[in-house]
Parts: sequence; structure tokens; C-alpha cells
Amino acid sequence: MSNPVKDAWKQGRAVVNGWLGIPSAFSAELMAKAGFDSLTVDMQHGIQDYMSTVACMQAIQAHPVTPLVRVPWLEQGIIGKVLDAGAMGVICPMINTPAEAKALVSACRYAPVGTRSFGPVRAAIYGQGGAYFDTANDDIAVIAMIETKQALDNLEAILDVPGIDAIYIGPSDLGITLGLPPRLDREEPEVMTIYERLLKEAAKRNIAVGLHNGTPEYALKMIKMGFRFTTVSNDAALVGVGALRDVAVMRKG
Amino acid sequence: MSNPVKDAWKQGRAVVNGWLGIPSAFSAELMAKAGFDSLTVDMQHGIQDYMSTVACMQAIQAHPVTPLVRVPWLEQGIIGKVLDAGAMGVICPMINTPAEAKALVSACRYAPVGTRSFGPVRAAIYGQGGAYFDTANDDIAVIAMIETKQALDNLEAILDVPGIDAIYIGPSDLGITLGLPPRLDREEPEVMTIYERLLKEAAKRNIAVGLHNGTPEYALKMIKMGFRFTTVSNDAALVGVGALRDVAVMRKG
Amino acid sequence: MSNPVKDAWKQGRAVVNGWLGIPSAFSAELMAKAGFDSLTVDMQHGIQDYMSTVACMQAIQAHPVTPLVRVPWLEQGIIGKVLDAGAMGVICPMINTPAEAKALVSACRYAPVGTRSFGPVRAAIYGQGGAYFDTANDDIAVIAMIETKQALDNLEAILDVPGIDAIYIGPSDLGITLGLPPRLDREEPEVMTIYERLLKEAAKRNIAVGLHNGTPEYALKMIKMGFRFTTVSNDAALVGVGALRDVAVMRKG
Amino acid sequence: MSNPVKDAWKQGRAVVNGWLGIPSAFSAELMAKAGFDSLTVDMQHGIQDYMSTVACMQAIQAHPVTPLVRVPWLEQGIIGKVLDAGAMGVICPMINTPAEAKALVSACRYAPVGTRSFGPVRAAIYGQGGAYFDTANDDIAVIAMIETKQALDNLEAILDVPGIDAIYIGPSDLGITLGLPPRLDREEPEVMTIYERLLKEAAKRNIAVGLHNGTPEYALKMIKMGFRFTTVSNDAALVGVGALRDVAVMRKG
Amino acid sequence: MSNPVKDAWKQGRAVVNGWLGIPSAFSAELMAKAGFDSLTVDMQHGIQDYMSTVACMQAIQAHPVTPLVRVPWLEQGIIGKVLDAGAMGVICPMINTPAEAKALVSACRYAPVGTRSFGPVRAAIYGQGGAYFDTANDDIAVIAMIETKQALDNLEAILDVPGIDAIYIGPSDLGITLGLPPRLDREEPEVMTIYERLLKEAAKRNIAVGLHNGTPEYALKMIKMGFRFTTVSNDAALVGVGALRDVAVMRKG
Amino acid sequence: MSNPVKDAWKQGRAVVNGWLGIPSAFSAELMAKAGFDSLTVDMQHGIQDYMSTVACMQAIQAHPVTPLVRVPWLEQGIIGKVLDAGAMGVICPMINTPAEAKALVSACRYAPVGTRSFGPVRAAIYGQGGAYFDTANDDIAVIAMIETKQALDNLEAILDVPGIDAIYIGPSDLGITLGLPPRLDREEPEVMTIYERLLKEAAKRNIAVGLHNGTPEYALKMIKMGFRFTTVSNDAALVGVGALRDVAVMRKG
Repeated sequence: MSNPVKDAWKQGRAVVNGWLGIPSAFSAELMAKAGFDSLTVDMQHGIQDYMSTVACMQAIQAHPVTPLVRVPWLEQGIIGKVLDAGAMGVICPMINTPAEAKALVSACRYAPVGTRSFGPVRAAIYGQGGAYFDTANDDIAVIAMIETKQALDNLEAILDVPGIDAIYIGPSDLGITLGLPPRLDREEPEVMTIYERLLKEAAKRNIAVGLHNGTPEYALKMIKMGFRFTTVSNDAALVGVGALRDVAVMRKG
Repeated sequence: MSNPVKDAWKQGRAVVNGWLGIPSAFSAELMAKAGFDSLTVDMQHGIQDYMSTVACMQAIQAHPVTPLVRVPWLEQGIIGKVLDAGAMGVICPMINTPAEAKALVSACRYAPVGTRSFGPVRAAIYGQGGAYFDTANDDIAVIAMIETKQALDNLEAILDVPGIDAIYIGPSDLGITLGLPPRLDREEPEVMTIYERLLKEAAKRNIAVGLHNGTPEYALKMIKMGFRFTTVSNDAALVGVGALRDVAVMRKG
Repeated sequence: MSNPVKDAWKQGRAVVNGWLGIPSAFSAELMAKAGFDSLTVDMQHGIQDYMSTVACMQAIQAHPVTPLVRVPWLEQGIIGKVLDAGAMGVICPMINTPAEAKALVSACRYAPVGTRSFGPVRAAIYGQGGAYFDTANDDIAVIAMIETKQALDNLEAILDVPGIDAIYIGPSDLGITLGLPPRLDREEPEVMTIYERLLKEAAKRNIAVGLHNGTPEYALKMIKMGFRFTTVSNDAALVGVGALRDVAVMRKG
Repeated sequence: MSNPVKDAWKQGRAVVNGWLGIPSAFSAELMAKAGFDSLTVDMQHGIQDYMSTVACMQAIQAHPVTPLVRVPWLEQGIIGKVLDAGAMGVICPMINTPAEAKALVSACRYAPVGTRSFGPVRAAIYGQGGAYFDTANDDIAVIAMIETKQALDNLEAILDVPGIDAIYIGPSDLGITLGLPPRLDREEPEVMTIYERLLKEAAKRNIAVGLHNGTPEYALKMIKMGFRFTTVSNDAALVGVGALRDVAVMRKG
Repeated sequence: MSNPVKDAWKQGRAVVNGWLGIPSAFSAELMAKAGFDSLTVDMQHGIQDYMSTVACMQAIQAHPVTPLVRVPWLEQGIIGKVLDAGAMGVICPMINTPAEAKALVSACRYAPVGTRSFGPVRAAIYGQGGAYFDTANDDIAVIAMIETKQALDNLEAILDVPGIDAIYIGPSDLGITLGLPPRLDREEPEVMTIYERLLKEAAKRNIAVGLHNGTPEYALKMIKMGFRFTTVSNDAALVGVGALRDVAVMRKG
Repeated sequence: MSNPVKDAWKQGRAVVNGWLGIPSAFSAELMAKAGFDSLTVDMQHGIQDYMSTVACMQAIQAHPVTPLVRVPWLEQGIIGKVLDAGAMGVICPMINTPAEAKALVSACRYAPVGTRSFGPVRAAIYGQGGAYFDTANDDIAVIAMIETKQALDNLEAILDVPGIDAIYIGPSDLGITLGLPPRLDREEPEVMTIYERLLKEAAKRNIAVGLHNGTPEYALKMIKMGFRFTTVSNDAALVGVGALRDVAVMRKG
């Protein structure tokens, strides 16, 4: 086993990520076929639960795409379950303190590093030669969301927690805690300054930085700025925005 | 109760239809919000079964959109089930003979017109004042797919069957039986000639004609030609094509 | 194995049947606990499909209640599936001709009597000593719905088809084909005359007669009249009518 | 967007609430049609999980009824998920201390009031003009269950936590912690004294008080006493009690 | 695209097939990992419906195993649906006459050969270069079950129907129609004689012959006899028989 | 109500337990029929969620087998939900401290012993005479997993927590925290020494000790050593290992 997402980060390449919010393995297959490097099942804000997450991961297994999961919250039970089901990485919302960062790492790693419980029922099917245990602590990507003012205040301490592979920025929540309206693809100078600080501090520690984007055009700019994990499409938005566009053409016609 | 799709046809207006192939009530809601006149759950080629069809119809009920269902095949059991579940119209594939057209009408109408069995468990929730039975035979749209050479050979006889409200053209299947490759948004002159014949014969009998389109631009042209029921978006295509486009932008970037 | 419903008929006792239209194994358990002799999953007009039917039968297995299924239509595929899943009887809608009656019997019986295919994957779990095959042709109840004028015209010929264990009257459909509005618990003299004829002809042939009722009070009268299989409750009606009643109390209060 | 339940409370009107414990969107529709002001999906003691909760909320969206959810426990992950899925209020069990009350409010409110994460994927479909964020902190009803002796000991401090819109009494759990058997529709004088205290303290702070009732008759009395949120029907009880009643009529007959 | 099962037949190799009767994509993955050449979702006697069939096919897509489906009955609607969902072959029960054989071939082939309708929504994801249509008529395996005395009587005429790729023997049903008890792994001389006739007549026409076996040991013997498609494991039996064996060890211990 | 598992422990008998990791009520029925004393739905490492757990418990209710659930983690919400759904015992992973042991007991017991909330919607269906509440605190088995070095360090204090009915050993996790590779059926002398200590300390306090085994043969040895709760089969392993064995026979043949 190995994790192409972590390999890309080691090589300084940016990962193109898609987002699965529709609880359908068929929709997930359609996304997988498009050629993303990774797909993230969004159990936090998507209409996804554990079973739909498993179904999505089963459906994309045939494609050369790395399965990731954003869990609903920092809770060890669900983190263990999605890893056992085959997720190659966990994005965890609202990591605001070093203690939370440590708890996240612990939930994702077997002893002696952490407290993950052993039983990778589905994950081991796809591990090489039964060696899932031997490499899982290295392979699984631990991705902490930095998305509040509190997290920024604790940034260095959070990044210093051993075992954080990447951080992921939620622009809407970050904005809200800064007193700005929620939105993606932000341009405010104060936010840009924050992004630069995040990239700099993360780079010092060899930690990749990811961003949730609304458009590929914006994501491309962010890759140039240094982001190495960029979400650029969301199945629910593809349906919703695409349908609105088609209806608009008809109504104008 | 009344059926806005049939009302539009009576008034000569074209209906803008969306297509639901992803078995997800959430995806269906996103489509419903876009403003289509009607949404068709595709039980034939979509990844849909009876339960997902019910879930999609439940989810779009809050929106001003008329729920239609394309059934898998001319089979009275499933036609009755989707009508009982609240479909306001049935699109039935492969109506190639007058006998098949009669069987379709019969399955959609209560006696003495047809043989539909009474028990509109979900449909009656949304009927007005318990009067579902009184108006259902008028309200339900019976839509026969004309999509083979055999159907063209029998066209007038099929159209003469009392109770057919509309016909719906499947360009791929029609093409295949004519020796052409399957595709939407056809431009072949021989196909245009067929479309003209269909529109003319249907118009004589006050029957609306619908078409499955790949793009709204093509659909607009077809409305000008006389089509009154045009499918212009497909949730699965919105995801698949949209994702490919986004990834392409990233890979080029 | 044996079938308590058929045993009751042999002994001249009336069977009290409940109706499952809500696709929930939990709702089915609540019904099962109430003490019905049998419960019928309604795949025709209920919001039920094959999988919800299996789940309902699994959930009621712990209770002393005989599982029956009303199939959507006379189609051998689904009849075989529900029997394999453990149904002890099949109620089939719209048996209007002796040919349809014969097809129904054939679908429910193994050769040489019929054409049922062998593979009772779930049913055999609950058969005694693996002897499912040996007794299934005797145990399974074949119940033909008589619910149209056409069926009345063919009544004697239908009843003469060997293997029909019972007939079941659908008062709404029967009414519709007679030009009456659909309803349960009918009182029209012409309908009573029909019921008397049905009871008399069936009794001659040792065939039980069942009726779909709206209230237990009416069902009790019908048992006195000779009916031996009476549906008296419907989970969907219990919810819908009960909720309306509770809200009415509150609004008056 | 606005929340009719909160509007009613502002105007001093009592809200008539129904309870959804059967995991079925169809059952939920039947309840919705009955005319309740609000319906609460019970994820704590009902046979409901996140996906069935979403399905129930989708199915009742077409009706003028406000969707609420009782979450299984005070856990921010699931609170965020049901709000994102469109719940207009959260009932949280076992709020026994001011700290728990604060955590509940925090989970339901965006910064700077709380720590809810932004991503109302389904909720925003039904928000007006994309303005979900602008009004959500005002619209969402935060309802803390007071149902233990410990909560009574901390009552004033709990009620003083800013952001609690209502409290909801669980008579069974309250009884248990007082050494009484679990039951609804209690009449014990000591309990009445507690209810009076709750109503008085809540009224001082403009907080509505709700009660879980077993019958509409009892609920009416409680409205006169001052309760402004009264649960009066439960789909599972409607099935279970109704079926028992019907069978009893038959067995007596 | 190509079909490794048909390739094996062309090369005279025997295909080792597994059987999926448990409606679980996870169970299907476990089977897929075991190294079968093909896996057949059993929609006839297994606890499978269309949606569970799709889920099983999605889950095994990552493995080098060819997905086949046994449909419930000869019905064009479901045959089209499983092919559109990605089945590379259809096993159809109870093909007893040349007319039934022709109907089966027709349902599996596009015009001009047959009457399959075009819309391979999931299948095309895994077709090469969008060329699904071009090769599907060649790639899809049409497998007719020969399992009754009537079919034996019509054997040559059935085998002469163009487009039958293989026949599949159901030993239980075959036995029943011959007056023998249902069982697998038969040894009766009269059955062996039948098998020899089947193999001889099929070989003449270049048609592969398959058999449903209860043990791999018996299947190996049958391969030596000439069978080229042998089912040797069944997930439900692996659970049921394996659990009985483990409990027996414990009870004896 | 009573709990046969606790009865067995009182009488010093060993309980033979099966393990459900496949999310299928059908697979659960097959396991139940095999004759285990108890079956445990594994929500931690199995592909199970709350709804599949309920379905499995519904399906095994007809069999004389006691339903247990391993919850994903020590979280009161899910513990309450599985008990309300009818679990007769809870196995909780990773009980490492007396505080965690107390929290587990509290979540499983009604006041005044614990903090379980009342509402046994499904459990009460199967309680005797509505007396679920009266005996639940005695009947429900509270089973703490001892599976880390930390738990061993705290062993006596954990066992001294009132209300722990049994402990359950996870050999893989125990091994990992001891620096050994994860596996079942361990033979290392240091592990045997630990098992002996666990059995001795538990016996002093009348607490049963359970073990997760890979084979019945090993389990029999462990029963002789003193274990009174032995898991000996796992549905997922029966499928996976059984299929591998069958394919191996074929490939060798």
C-alpha cells in the first residue's frame, strides 16, 4: 500500500481533489471517472453518513483516485470507522488547539503513536499482502482543518504537533470567525495575508496546505501561491449550478 | 388536482423537463430548485428503482415542478406503482404497435377506460379533497415513446389510440433502428424528415411531441420546430461532464 | 412447516389480517405485536418493494403471525421472489380469467403441479428439517383477487381452476368496474348480492373468501356473512387517520 | 426564512407537535398532512438515523409544518448535520448543567455567538435568497431537555444561558430521577409543582416550555397550564395502539 | 471492452464462477478478492434486487472479475437495467422454448439483432473510449438456463437460436421436473446421460455449458466432463454452512 | 425478560458468540440459525451502522440467540440507541480507566444507578408485560473491552467499578500496545500470563471474561482456561476465507 496523495506532497506536487456531497455511489463513480487525484466524501456538510461513505469508496475503488473522508467532527469512533472502511486520509473540521490536533493524530494512528483500534475490515482487502498494519501509520493522511480565529491564534502550536500531514483551510468558517460573510474563493487582503502565513509556517514543517475552492480557475491561482491540495469540484454544485444554467438558457431562448 | 404539463400542452406551451438518473433525493431537490417545469425519474436507463423513485418524488414535492416517471418497460405492475406513488405522468419506452399503445393507456386509466387498480396511497395525499379518483383519468399524462422503425411504420395507428397524450422521441434508439449510431441532438436530414412527420401527425390529433435533448441550445431549436416537451438536463451528465471540464481546466492550468 | 392461515380455513375459522403499506420493519413489528393472525405486505398499492418486503417479513418472523404478500401484478418473477423470501401466501391482483388463475397457481407451485423454480433461500431457514420442498405445494396459500366485472363474468371458471385456495375481494376496484365510486365497507344491495354469490360459489369448492375492510366493525359483520379472511387494519391508515384525529382534538380544544 | 415555531412562541401561542419514530418518509408525509404545526424526528429514542431524518425532512417539506430534530445526545457533529439538512430547531436530551446548555447553544449558532460550522447544503435550498447565514442564528430554535433532578437543581443557571429558546420536559426520565416509574401524562402533585416552577422561571426569561404528552386531552390541559410546545402524537404509537385496538375489536366480536 | 468469460469460452477454458445471494457490497468485495473468474449476482433466488445488484457490481469493479447477473425471470425491463448497470452477461432462468430463447437474445442485443434500448449509463463508464455500443452485441454473454423437461424436449431448437452464448443447468429444477428431489451435485445416471447430451449438442454449436455446483470437488469433475462455466461457491452458503460447522465444533468440544 | 448470556455466566457456563460484520439482515439470519448462544453486531470494525444493526437484531429475533452490540466507541448517544433497539448487552471498546468504566456503566443503566434515558421503543416490544424498565438494569450486560497496556495498568480499579458484568479481550489491540503484531489466537507466553491475571482478578469479582477468537479450536482451549464468552465465527471471515478455499481447490484441480 501507499498513498499517492502523500507521495505527491513529498514531491511538491499539487493534488486535485473532488468533493462528494451527494450520497450516491453512482454519482461518486461519475466523479471518479473525471480524473481527480483524490475524492473526499464530505460527512460533515454533505448529505452523507457512514454507509453512503462506504458505498462511495467502494464505487471509486476501481479508479486511480485516492479516497479521503471529511468526518463530521473530532470523534474517535467515526474516524476509526472510515479508516477501517478504506479511507486513505481524514480531514477533520475545527482543529483549534494543539490538544485537538493531538487527539486527531492519535485517532488515526496505531500504538505506540496513537490509539487507533485494529480491525481494518475493508481497508485490508486493498492493502498489499496483508501488510496494512505495517504501513498504515505512514500511509494514512492526517489533515487538520484550520478555519477559525482561534486556530490561527494557536497555529504554530497546532503545526508542531507530530503527525499532522496537512492542514486544510475552510474559507467560509474562517471568514465567519473573522467577521466576514461566508464564501469561497476569497480575495480580501487580510485573508491573503493569513493564507501566506499559513503557507509559510506549514512549509517550515513540511506540512502540505489545502484549500476548499469554488472554481478551478481560483484553485489554479492558489496552487501558484503554494497550496498543494485543492478541492475544485463538488458534485452537488455541479448538479445545482449546471441545472440552473440550463434552465436559464431555456427561459431566455 | 391538475397537471401543469397537460395544461401547458393545451395552451401550446413547451415544457422544460429535467432528467433524474442519480438515485438520490438530494440530487433531485437540487434539480427541482433550478426551475424546470417537470422532472422525470428515469427508471429505465437511470440508476433508479421504485424506492429511489418514490424518494425523488417526495423530495421534489415542495417545488412547483410536475413529477413524471419513465418506467423500465411496458409492464402494468410498475406503471400502477409509480402512479400510486404520485407520478403525474408515465413515459413508457418502446411503444411500437397500437396494441402496446392501448396497453399503456389501459394501465394508466381507471375503468371504464382502462384497467388501473385503485389505491393511490401517496398520490391521494396530494390530490385535492380526496378527489383523486374523480380527475385522475384526465390528469395523468400518458406518454408513449416512439423510438424504432417499427413504431414509425405503425405511427398513425399508434397515434389513433385514444388516450395517448404525448409521444416522446428517443433519438438514440431511433437512430439505431435506422442503422445510425446512437446519439442525441441529431442533425441528419432523414431524421429531420421523420421529426417533421411526427410533429405533423401528432398535431392533427392534438398530441404533444417530446424530445430527449443533450443541450438546451438544441432543445430551443426543437421547440421552434414544434416540440412541446423537451428534456434539457440530466443530473448524471451534469456531474460527469462538469467534473471532466473542471479537471481539464486544472490539468491545463 | 405448516400454514396456520390454511389450517384456519380448513377448520372454518376466520383469519384476522393486518396490512403493511409503510416500508418499515419497525412499523411491521408494531403491527405483528398486536396479535393479528396474518400480516400482508402490500407490494401493489403500498410503498413497498421487494427489499422492504423482505425486511418486514424478517421483522415479524419472531411473532406468531403468518406472512403474506400481495404482489404488484401477475408476474412470475416477483411471485417466486417473495415465496423464496418466506411468504406463506400470495395475494395476486386482478385475476379476471381462468388463464390468469392458472398462471397464478403455476407460479406458486413446484412441478409437476406448476412452474415455480427451486431456491427458497430464506424460506428454507424457517422450513422444518429442510423439508421445505416436500410440503411447500401444500403449505403456500394461493389467493386470487376477484375485483372486476370481468372476473365476476368468469367466476365459476376461475374458481374451478385447481389450486386456488382463496379469493380476495377488492371492494374499490370491484366498485369502479361496476360504475360505483371506489370505497371500502360497501353497503350497496347490488354489491351484497355479488358477495353472496361469491361466498356460495366458493363454499361449493371449499375455497375461502376474503375481504379488504376499512373498519373492524364492518369486518365482523362480514365474518358473520361467511368471509374467512378479513383485513381490518392498515398501518398507513392508522398513522394518517390517528394523526388527523389527534390534531382535531387539539384544534377544537 | 423564518421559523413559525419561534413566531408562535413570540406571540404566546402553543405549538402542536407530532413525533416521528418510524424511519419512513411515507409515514412522515402522512403525519405532515394531518396539520401539525411542527414535526420532530426523534433520533434519540426513535428508530431514526441521520439518513432517515433527512428523508423525513424531505418528505414533509411540501407541507406547512416546521421540521425539528431531537438529536441522540449533546454532540456537535450530529447537531451540525441535522441543521445543515434543514432542521429549524434542535431538541437536545439531558441538558443538566449550564455548561451543557452553553455547549448546545454554541453548536447551533454561527460565530461570533457559537461554533457551528458553515455549510447548509440542504437547508440553504429552502432559505430565502441565499440569506440562510444572515438569519440562521435567529431562526433556529434551541430547545434544551430538562428531564433530571440534576437539571432541576441547576434550573435557573441553565435558563440564564443566553440563546436557549425553549426547554422541553421529558416526563419519563424526570420521573425516574425522582424515584417514580417512567410514564407520560403524569398527575403526581410533586410533578405538578415542578412543572409550575419550570413554567414560572421560564416565563421570567421569555423561554417557551414544552412537554411530551401521551394524549391530546392531557396536552390541552397542559396548554392551559402554560406550556407552549406540546407533543401529542407519535407515529409508532399510532400504529401500535391502533392495531391493538382493532385486533381487540375483532377478538371480542 | 471485452468479456473475459467469452474469451475463456472461445479458448476452451473453464470459468470459475462465484454466486452472490447476500445483498451486500461488502460481502461481494470479499468474494471478489478470492480470485473467481466471474461473479453472478443472483436476482432470482438470492436476496437481491436491482439496487443491491448495482451496489455489488460497483464493489467488485476494482477486481479482475467479470460481473454477471441472473435475472428473476425473462422480462425485458430488468434485463435492460442490469446490462445498463454494467453486467457483462445475463443468466436467464427457465428458457423452455425457442421463442423464449429468441426473446432473451433480443433483450440483450441492440438493433438490428435485437430490441435492447440504448442508455448504458453505468456500463459506458467502464466501456473503452465510449465505444460501448460498438462492441456490446459481441461482448455481452447471453446465457439461457436449461432446467426443465420441456427445455430438454426443445433442446436442439433452443440451441439453434442465434445468439445464445451459453446454457446453464439448474440441477434442482431439472430434477424436480424429472420427478427427482431438488439437489445439487447430482449423480443419478439418468441425469448424467442428460448432461452428456447437453454437452454434445452444445459443443456442435460452439455453445458453452455451465453448471450450478455445491462443491468445488464436484465442479472439478464436471469440468473434466466438459462444462466450461462452473459455479462453486455461494456467499450465503459460506456463511450458513461455515457457521454451523463452527458451532458444531464448539458443542462437541 | 431475562438475559440468557448473564444467566449462563451466573451458572459458570461459557457462551458461544458469533460476530456480525456484514451489514445484512439475511446474513444475520443465516448466522442465527447456526445455533450460537449470542450474536454481536460489530459497529466498531464491522461494516455496520445503527440502521443495519437494527435490521440484524430484527432478523435474529425469531431465533433463540441473545443480541449484543459492540458500539464504535464510548459515546452515550449510540449506547442508548442500541439498547433502545433491543440489544441485551453492550461491548464497549477501549475501556482503559475506571472513569471510562464508570461512564460505560452509567450509559447502560437507568437512574439512580446511571444516566440512561428512557424510551426503549423497540426493546419494549420484546420485554415481558411492559416490564422492561423494571428489569433492564439487571438484564443488560455491560461488557468492557480490556485491550491496552493502559487498561492492564488500571485493571483492578476498572474491575472494581460496580456494574461491569464482563470484560472482553481484544487480542490484536492488546498485542499492538504491547509491541506485538496484531493477531488473534495468540500463543505468546507473556500474553498467556496476562490472560491468567485477567481471569483471576475477574473471578474474584464474579466478572465473566470473554475473548475474540479466530477459530473454534482455539476458543475451546480458552474455555478450558476459564473464559466464559468466546467469539468463534465472523460472517465476513466465513465468506472471505471460505471463498479463498474454494477457489484454491479449483485452481489446484
